[in-house]
Amino acid sequence: MTVVKVFVNYKESILNPEAQAIQQALGRLGYDNITQLKVGKSFELTFADGMTREAIEKEVNEISDRMLANYNMENYTYEISESEDLS
Amino acid sequence: MTVVKVFVNYKESILNPEAQAIQQALGRLGYDNITQLKVGKSFELTFADGMTREAIEKEVNEISDRMLANYNMENYTYEISESEDLS
Repeated sequence: MTVVKVFVNYKESILNPEAQAIQQALGRLGYDNITQLKVGKSFELTFADGMTREAIEKEVNEISDRMLANYNMENYTYEISESEDLS
Repeated sequence: MTVVKVFVNYKESILNPEAQAIQQALGRLGYDNITQLKVGKSFELTFADGMTREAIEKEVNEISDRMLANYNMENYTYEISESEDLS
């Protein structure tokens, strides 16, 4: 079983009103040490046994491009974490 | 400058229809090696210089409890990553 975490964030050039609103609210609560705040999505995919690392990375990239991240506005990174049987 | 990543996910007992829908859609696209899929939120907070590690961890916990995670349905983890001057 292999667990892959995919992190999807807005590209730098994209304004994120949600992040702005949270940062302002935190400022009103007295947390004004935060110079920047980003909000994104995280996905945790558990792959079945018996897949090679290359096969998993290929699928993760395809899945992220096709469904998890909007190519125009977002970019993604991923981490392959627990894995008992990666060959 | 210290960057802290906060990951907010639903508790195990909470059903996440969004994750189910994505997993089913991926199955229809032919990606049926995924045995489990979780969807969560990620926050990246950049703290100003001059704060100690304890002060940052205290603020991250307070902020997460008060605003970023819904205590009843979600739990959170965090990672303190880049940091030039943590004393």
